Amino acid sequence: MSNFRAAIIGATGFTGIELVRLLSQHPQIELAALTSESKAGQDYADVFPQFRGLVSHQLQSYHDLHPEDIDILFLALPHRVSMSFVKEHPQWTMPIIDLSGDFRLDDPLSYEKWYDKKHVLPDRVGQAAYGLPELHEEKIRKADLIANPGCFPTASILPLAPLVAEGLIDPEYVIIDAKTGVTGAGAKSKPVNHFSSVNDNFKAYGLKTHRHSIEIQQQLDHLSSKGMRIQFTPHLLPIDRGILTTCYSRPHQAITDTELYELYQNFYRDQPFIRLVSTAPSLKQVRGSNFCDIYLTFDERTGNIISMGAIDNLVKGAAGQAVHNMNLRLGLAPDAGLSIVPLQP
Amino acid sequence: MSNFRAAIIGATGFTGIELVRLLSQHPQIELAALTSESKAGQDYADVFPQFRGLVSHQLQSYHDLHPEDIDILFLALPHRVSMSFVKEHPQWTMPIIDLSGDFRLDDPLSYEKWYDKKHVLPDRVGQAAYGLPELHEEKIRKADLIANPGCFPTASILPLAPLVAEGLIDPEYVIIDAKTGVTGAGAKSKPVNHFSSVNDNFKAYGLKTHRHSIEIQQQLDHLSSKGMRIQFTPHLLPIDRGILTTCYSRPHQAITDTELYELYQNFYRDQPFIRLVSTAPSLKQVRGSNFCDIYLTFDERTGNIISMGAIDNLVKGAAGQAVHNMNLRLGLAPDAGLSIVPLQP
Amino acid sequence: MSNFRAAIIGATGFTGIELVRLLSQHPQIELAALTSESKAGQDYADVFPQFRGLVSHQLQSYHDLHPEDIDILFLALPHRVSMSFVKEHPQWTMPIIDLSGDFRLDDPLSYEKWYDKKHVLPDRVGQAAYGLPELHEEKIRKADLIANPGCFPTASILPLAPLVAEGLIDPEYVIIDAKTGVTGAGAKSKPVNHFSSVNDNFKAYGLKTHRHSIEIQQQLDHLSSKGMRIQFTPHLLPIDRGILTTCYSRPHQAITDTELYELYQNFYRDQPFIRLVSTAPSLKQVRGSNFCDIYLTFDERTGNIISMGAIDNLVKGAAGQAVHNMNLRLGLAPDAGLSIVPLQP
Amino acid sequence: MSNFRAAIIGATGFTGIELVRLLSQHPQIELAALTSESKAGQDYADVFPQFRGLVSHQLQSYHDLHPEDIDILFLALPHRVSMSFVKEHPQWTMPIIDLSGDFRLDDPLSYEKWYDKKHVLPDRVGQAAYGLPELHEEKIRKADLIANPGCFPTASILPLAPLVAEGLIDPEYVIIDAKTGVTGAGAKSKPVNHFSSVNDNFKAYGLKTHRHSIEIQQQLDHLSSKGMRIQFTPHLLPIDRGILTTCYSRPHQAITDTELYELYQNFYRDQPFIRLVSTAPSLKQVRGSNFCDIYLTFDERTGNIISMGAIDNLVKGAAGQAVHNMNLRLGLAPDAGLSIVPLQP
Repeated sequence: MSNFRAAIIGATGFTGIELVRLLSQHPQIELAALTSESKAGQDYADVFPQFRGLVSHQLQSYHDLHPEDIDILFLALPHRVSMSFVKEHPQWTMPIIDLSGDFRLDDPLSYEKWYDKKHVLPDRVGQAAYGLPELHEEKIRKADLIANPGCFPTASILPLAPLVAEGLIDPEYVIIDAKTGVTGAGAKSKPVNHFSSVNDNFKAYGLKTHRHSIEIQQQLDHLSSKGMRIQFTPHLLPIDRGILTTCYSRPHQAITDTELYELYQNFYRDQPFIRLVSTAPSLKQVRGSNFCDIYLTFDERTGNIISMGAIDNLVKGAAGQAVHNMNLRLGLAPDAGLSIVPLQP
Repeated sequence: MSNFRAAIIGATGFTGIELVRLLSQHPQIELAALTSESKAGQDYADVFPQFRGLVSHQLQSYHDLHPEDIDILFLALPHRVSMSFVKEHPQWTMPIIDLSGDFRLDDPLSYEKWYDKKHVLPDRVGQAAYGLPELHEEKIRKADLIANPGCFPTASILPLAPLVAEGLIDPEYVIIDAKTGVTGAGAKSKPVNHFSSVNDNFKAYGLKTHRHSIEIQQQLDHLSSKGMRIQFTPHLLPIDRGILTTCYSRPHQAITDTELYELYQNFYRDQPFIRLVSTAPSLKQVRGSNFCDIYLTFDERTGNIISMGAIDNLVKGAAGQAVHNMNLRLGLAPDAGLSIVPLQP
Repeated sequence: MSNFRAAIIGATGFTGIELVRLLSQHPQIELAALTSESKAGQDYADVFPQFRGLVSHQLQSYHDLHPEDIDILFLALPHRVSMSFVKEHPQWTMPIIDLSGDFRLDDPLSYEKWYDKKHVLPDRVGQAAYGLPELHEEKIRKADLIANPGCFPTASILPLAPLVAEGLIDPEYVIIDAKTGVTGAGAKSKPVNHFSSVNDNFKAYGLKTHRHSIEIQQQLDHLSSKGMRIQFTPHLLPIDRGILTTCYSRPHQAITDTELYELYQNFYRDQPFIRLVSTAPSLKQVRGSNFCDIYLTFDERTGNIISMGAIDNLVKGAAGQAVHNMNLRLGLAPDAGLSIVPLQP
Repeated sequence: MSNFRAAIIGATGFTGIELVRLLSQHPQIELAALTSESKAGQDYADVFPQFRGLVSHQLQSYHDLHPEDIDILFLALPHRVSMSFVKEHPQWTMPIIDLSGDFRLDDPLSYEKWYDKKHVLPDRVGQAAYGLPELHEEKIRKADLIANPGCFPTASILPLAPLVAEGLIDPEYVIIDAKTGVTGAGAKSKPVNHFSSVNDNFKAYGLKTHRHSIEIQQQLDHLSSKGMRIQFTPHLLPIDRGILTTCYSRPHQAITDTELYELYQNFYRDQPFIRLVSTAPSLKQVRGSNFCDIYLTFDERTGNIISMGAIDNLVKGAAGQAVHNMNLRLGLAPDAGLSIVPLQP
C-alpha cells in the first residue's frame, strides 16, 4: 500500500511530540518534516532522547518545507499562531488538521469573546470540519481543514452526546466536573506547572471562564433542539496525562442503567475508540491510547444521571484524534496506527 | 494551667497517628495512653519512626488502661468496633470523642441501611453531639459522647451550610463532586491503595452508595426547612492528604459574589478554622492544618453557585477536628494546639 | 510468515500483564493461552480493563492447557513456584522462558543460601541460558530453558560489562547504587507498596541481602579473570516503572570519555536495544520500551568511572527482554514487536 | 522571656517561606520584616495562602528596613546576590545568617572556580562560622556572620564525620550517592522542574561539577588528617522535600555495627536533631522537621561501610538549621521552635 507523507508544524510541544510518537509508528505514514523555529537544525532525538534509535529527523524551519512533498499537514501550534499560519499559506492545498482552538468555534464573535483576540480569517470560522469522528465522520472525510477538538470537549461531549441528541435530559441542568493532567497546560515552564505547585496537590482553575466551555456548549447545542446551559469546571490533577469528566444531568424521567447502555451502544455502534465500561474508569486504563472509556449510571435516589468519560488528553484529546481524522481523510483504516494497549501500570 | 490526660484507643491507624502528632504537641495535654491490640508492648517510635525523640510511649492493650487516669478518651477505631467498645465500657464516664461513623447518623435504621449492620446501642444513635464545631459548639461543650464528623461531610457541609440555612438554594439541586487523598481509605494495604493503582491515576468510586452521602444529607436536612436531595460523588486523588469538594447549587435568584462572601462571613464569624479565600483553593494550602478554606462564586451565565471546601482529611476531617472538639469540651482555647502552618511546598 | 503460539503461565502479575501487552501487539505471535489459578474463567479484559477491545481471552487454569498447541511458553510465576512447575511438566518440550529467579544462579548452593530454599531441580541450576541477549545470544538461540535475568541485574550488568570484560577496573571496587520503581515489588498489596508509604517518599531496602546481589556478582565474575566484589544497594522510588543504576568503579589508569564510548560502542555493536547517550538518562526516556540507555564518564578529580543504566524494569527488566529472547529462540527479527517509542511525558 | 526581632531578606523563595513557617511559630521570635523586591506591598498571605490567618505581614523592600529594629537577620537570597548585600550594608551589625553558598567555602579561589564568579568580599571568605551546629557550636555562638550549610553538605557530612574524624576510613574511597526532592532547585519555573519532567521520573544531574562537592570535601578535610577524595553524585527525586544520601566508605579494618553506633552516639551526644536509627530511614520520617536520621552498617562480604543521612532539605538542609543557628547565637534553647513532628503520611 502506498504511503502518505505527513508534516508537523510545531513538533516540539507536547502535542507535537505525541504526533511524532504516533506517526513514526504508523504503518502507512512517512514523516516528511518536523518543524520548530527555535530548535531548527537540531536532531529531534537529541532534543527528545526517548526517540533515539527510532526517529532520525532533524528539526527544520517551516520556511524550508516543500508543500508539494506533503500529503497531510498537522498544525501543532498555539492558539492564535495557527490561524495566522493558515492565512499566510493560502496556496498550501493539502488537507490540514489544526490542533489549536482557532477553527473550532461556530462564529468569529464567540472566538473574539473567549479567546480575547479578533480572528484573522473570520470567513473560515465555522467552516472547518469539527474533528470528532464519532459525530462528524462524513464531513471529516471530505474536509480541507479539520479543527481537531479540544481535550476537554472530547471528554465532555462523548459521554453526553447520546442523551442530548435523544432529548432525554433537561438542557439547563448539565454539570461537567472535569479533571485533567498537567500536560494539558503545555510544555512551557510556568508557575502553575512547577512540580511543587502540582505534586501532592489539587485545585480547580478557570472557573466560569475556560475557553472549552463555549466549545462544549456549541457542539452540544448542535445536537439539541433547545439551547443548552453547561456548567464546566476544570481541575488540575497531579498526573501527566488524562482527563476524567464526571457529568451530571437530569433526565425527564427515570431510566435504567440497561437502557442507558443500549442507547450508547447504538449511538456509538462501530466506533473503534469508544469503550462502554461497567465500572467507573480510571485514567491509567486509557493512558497512551486513543480510547474514550464511558461509564453510565442513573441514581434512583436523586434522579440524576452520572456519565463519565476517560481519555488520554494527549492522544484521544489531541494527537491520536488527529491521526484518526487523518486516517478518515486519507481513506485509511480508522484505527491504523492507533491500536495501542494503554500503559498500565 | 493544669493539664488533662488523654488516651487514644487505636493509635496505629492513620487517624490515631495524627492524634498522637497533634496531642503530643498540645500545650495542655498529657498523652496518658496509646493502645493497640496487635502491637501492644512495642515502642510507638519503633513502629512509627517519625516520632523518635518526641514520643516515648509504649503501646498497650486497652485492657490495661485505668479509666480513672483518663480525662478525655479518643476512639480511633473502625466503624462497628467503636460502638462495641462504648457498649462494653458503660462505667467509663470521661467524655468520649468517637472518630468512627457509629454515632453520626440520626437513627438506627439509617445506620443499618448504610453500614450493613444492626447498631448495638440503638438508643444512643442520634444522641451524641455531632462534632462539627462551626454548627454545634454549645452541644459539644456539654456532651458525654461526641461523634466526630466524617471527612467528606466536613468538607461538604461547611461550604454549603450557609446557603441551606438561609434557604437560598433549590434543595433538590445540589451536586457535591468530591476528591480525596488516599489516606481516607485507611492504612491497611489493599489493592485500591497499592501505589501503582493510584499513582499517575484518578477515578471515581462509591458512586451512589458512599456512606457519607447519608451523613451529609441528614446534617443539611437539619438546617433546611425542606428535604434535601444531595448527589455526592467521591473520587480518589494520587495524593496522601486532602479533600476538595466542588459543590454546585442553584439559587432561587441571582446573587453577587460579594453577597455570598458577606453571608459566609456572618455565618462563620469568630470561627478560627474557616478561611474564606478569594481564589480557588489548593489542597497544599491546608495540608497538615485544621483549616477549611472556602471559595464561593456565582456564575451569571448558568445561574449556578459553585462553592468549594478544601481540608486536610486527617486533620480538619478527623484528628484536628477531634482536638478542636476536645478543646471545647474541656474549656480550653478552641485553637489550642492547632495553630499550625500548612506544609507548602 | 507463519505465526507462533505463545502461552503465559501466570498472566495476572505485573510481568504477566506486560507480556500480554507486548505479545498481543507482536506481528508474529498468537496468544494461545493466559493462565491464572485464582481468576480462571474470567475475561482478561474484565480483570484488566486497559485490554478491553484488544484482548478477548478468558483466563484459564494451566491444567487445561494443551502443550501440543504451544510453541513457546512463558513462566511468569513467583520464585520457587516456577521451578516446581518445570519439575512437574517434564514432558513439555517447547522452549521455556522463565521470568523468575529460579534458574539464574550458577549452582544450587548459592540458590539455597540467597533464596532460603532448597532447589527442587538442582541438576538444572546453572544449565539454563542466562537470557541477557547482549552477552549470550548464541546460547539463547538454542536453549530449551532460558532464565530471564532479574531487573536489577539487567540494569547493572549492561553498564559494567565492557569494563569488566576488558579488565579495566579494580574488581574489588564496584558500587552499584540502584533505584527502582514500585512495580518491581509485584502487584500484591503489601505495606511496602501502600501509596502513602511510597508517595513523596524514598528509602533504601534490602541492604547487603538483596538476591540480585549474587546474580550480578556471578554474571560479572564470568566476564572477569578475577573474583569481583560488588556492593549493590537498591532504593525504592515513588514511580511505577524504571530502574536507574549509578555504578562507581575505579580504572587501573585514567581514561577519557571518548575512549569509554568507543569501548562500549564496540562491545554492543549491532545490539538493537542498547543506546549510548551523551547526557545522564532519565527513566521516562525508556518508559514502556525495551531500551537500556547507558551513560559513561570518567571523573579526573577522583579517578572514578561513573556508568549508568536506565531501563523500564517491566520491559527490558522482564517482559520485553523475554520477548527479545523469544525472538532469538524462534529465529525472528530480534526487535520484532519491540519497536516501541517510550512514553514521555 | 524577652523576644528577639528577626528579619528575612528574600522571603518569597522556598527557603524564605520555610523561615516564615518556622519563625512565625517560634515562641521567642517576633517577625520584624519580610522583604521582596518584586512583591513589595503585597500581603504575604495573599501571595502564599497557606499563611492566611497566621501571618499578617506585608512584604516590603529591603530599602525600607530599619536595622536598629532587627536583632537577627536572615539572608535567603540567591548565590552571588547575598555577598553583594553583605558588602553594601557594612553598617548593619546585627548577627547575620546567610543561607546562600557565598560564605561557605574556605577561600576565594575555590569560590571563583566552583561558582564561576569572583567573590566581592574575598577577605571574609573562610571567616564566617560554618553553621553546622553538630560540629561548630562554639564558633556559631559568637559569630557575626554564619554561613548556613548547603542541603547536600548537611546530609553528607553528618553521616560521615565520625568516621573521618576518627581516621577509620580510606580517605580516597568515599562515594556519596545523593537523592534530593525538587525544592532544592528553587521556586523559579524552569524546564527541569516542570511537573512532567519530574513526575514518574528520575535522573542524575550535575555529575562531577555540583558546587556542593567542594563544600563537602573542604568540611571533611577539616576533620581529616589526610586529604579526602569525595565522589558526590546528586539525583532528582519526584518528591517535594527531602535528601537521602547513601555513603560508601572502606574502613581500614572490619568493624561491627554495634561499634559503629557507639562511635556515632558518642560523637553526637546531646545533639537534639541527630537520630541514630536502626533501619534504613525514609524521607517522610523527617519531612517538615529539623531531624537528620542516620543509619549505619558494615557489610562483611564487601568490607564497605554504608552510612545514610535523611533530612528535609528545606528544614535541616536550610531554614531549620538556620533557626538552630539563631537559637545558639541568641542564647536560646537549641531546639526552641523546632520541636516538630515529621508529617507522615
